[in-house]
Amino acid sequence: MDKPYVIGIDVGGTNTVVGIVDKRGQIQKSGGIKTGKHSRVEDYLGELTDLIKDLMKGTATKSQIKGIGAGTPNGNYFTGSIEFAPNLPWKGVIPFARMLEERVGIPVALTNDANAAAIGEMTYGAARGMKDFIVITLGTGVGSGIVVNGQLVYGHDGFAGELGHVIMRRHNGRLCGCGRAGCLEAYTSATGMSRTAREYLDMRPKDKTSLRDIPAEDITSKDVFDAAMAGDEMAKEIFKYTGEMLGEAFADFIAFSSPEAIILFGGLSKAGNLIMNPIRESMEKNLLPIFRNKVRLMFSELKESDAAVLGASALGWEVRD
Amino acid sequence: MDKPYVIGIDVGGTNTVVGIVDKRGQIQKSGGIKTGKHSRVEDYLGELTDLIKDLMKGTATKSQIKGIGAGTPNGNYFTGSIEFAPNLPWKGVIPFARMLEERVGIPVALTNDANAAAIGEMTYGAARGMKDFIVITLGTGVGSGIVVNGQLVYGHDGFAGELGHVIMRRHNGRLCGCGRAGCLEAYTSATGMSRTAREYLDMRPKDKTSLRDIPAEDITSKDVFDAAMAGDEMAKEIFKYTGEMLGEAFADFIAFSSPEAIILFGGLSKAGNLIMNPIRESMEKNLLPIFRNKVRLMFSELKESDAAVLGASALGWEVRD
Repeated sequence: MDKPYVIGIDVGGTNTVVGIVDKRGQIQKSGGIKTGKHSRVEDYLGELTDLIKDLMKGTATKSQIKGIGAGTPNGNYFTGSIEFAPNLPWKGVIPFARMLEERVGIPVALTNDANAAAIGEMTYGAARGMKDFIVITLGTGVGSGIVVNGQLVYGHDGFAGELGHVIMRRHNGRLCGCGRAGCLEAYTSATGMSRTAREYLDMRPKDKTSLRDIPAEDITSKDVFDAAMAGDEMAKEIFKYTGEMLGEAFADFIAFSSPEAIILFGGLSKAGNLIMNPIRESMEKNLLPIFRNKVRLMFSELKESDAAVLGASALGWEVRD
Repeated sequence: MDKPYVIGIDVGGTNTVVGIVDKRGQIQKSGGIKTGKHSRVEDYLGELTDLIKDLMKGTATKSQIKGIGAGTPNGNYFTGSIEFAPNLPWKGVIPFARMLEERVGIPVALTNDANAAAIGEMTYGAARGMKDFIVITLGTGVGSGIVVNGQLVYGHDGFAGELGHVIMRRHNGRLCGCGRAGCLEAYTSATGMSRTAREYLDMRPKDKTSLRDIPAEDITSKDVFDAAMAGDEMAKEIFKYTGEMLGEAFADFIAFSSPEAIILFGGLSKAGNLIMNPIRESMEKNLLPIFRNKVRLMFSELKESDAAVLGASALGWEVRD
């Protein structure tokens, strides 16, 4: 029997969003609950199950749904578990896929947010028809979903694709949330950009910039974006610095898997050419000659508000019946 | 009909070696010709075809051979061509697989040496049963063959796996043969180790070392190995420096594909614990916590004299009939 729908679940630190999605990537119906409301995961899953059943009423029967895909922090595709997620209220290893499947009666697959984004781009977005590409998620952190030969790269333990944590500066690198220093994420995440802004303000006390109108500790990447768009030179340089670092990293990623495209996803990618131009220039400058002028740099083609749910839902097409 | 044999061809800058190989990786018969003898590739292929037919006599009929696999410098799996190989006498793009297939009448597949090594390890060697691993070839250059989900990573253009050319030192890095600076290969190839030896000798004119008995320009990685085995402190430090750099690089590779193992192949891997111990220590120190104490570091299990032919032959099992 044909199963025309999947369900996507985006489990974020604050909100959990659920959508019923068709084969063209149209969200038929969606809703949400607060992730942090329940300290017991059983209670959370109870509320989530009620929401899923509500959404299905009048839209899709159980037999019309191919599968449920969930994108979660620290989600492990192989085990179906959320493992030691620092930003969720449930500690340790949560066998999320199995627990939800028992409650809803539909097969559930789970992966982390960046892998979900990559599957989403491949199924509905910028990577349709591509077999080799990398999605880089630029948000509070820097994540990645890597596709090789048309398959997501999970690695032997399900944890592959931690490209936010390759080392970009081996001496005196910035401390990173992972406990090491010099990681890509420490420079090119939204918080990394804020740090860059504060460093620039400190290092160049005489330079005029509208960023000085904001208390240094409060500067966000959005503030830098707004200033750059208004023509602020220092803000533009901060984007250039961030893009150059990303371009250096991308050149190394390309030496690894020679992708057809690298796709930017998430908050920072909204900065458009402010971030894309310096990335492209730096990437081409740093590439091995055989890779030059071959790799496409693109933005996600998933509508931002829907992207996380769409990405997760795409995993639903892949679950075994 | 069962086809119990494959033919492996290792095309090196100096010699071309051919072997008929069975399913257990036993070389039934082998022989070789000089690669550089013929300036026209047609003449070279004529001699190679004669050799293959000679070897087959009394050993295997054409119908018993599943395929021919060739490992060549700059071999592109997708096109079956040798593309702009600097160390071969034939310039430009050589459609090697098609030309040989026409002459021998057996399907030919081709890839570069490092990918052949990876397929060889997976088929007959240290990576049997593994689906995710990386082979690093440490020789005159540094190459790599990457396997993900049981498949070689070729990338969208056939050129993936250039891990000798990730950038390890972004400022004042050593010039590399690729035209850029700071590449892993510039430090950890056999020639890279010789450069390290000369740098150490220059920087520490007062340190006693038996390496001073050799004219600086003539020092090879073998000399450093011999000195280290004889207890020379500077030689041991050179191995430590080289291993540390490899360990740093491996930690980044693991963040990409989370392999079960990294396998060392080629000349430098003969140095055993002299190179393995500093790699292991540096790799573990540089890994993201989730990857620590999980990834096996191994040496190739292919007999060195046969490894290149075995690796190439393993590709023969994969050719389409």
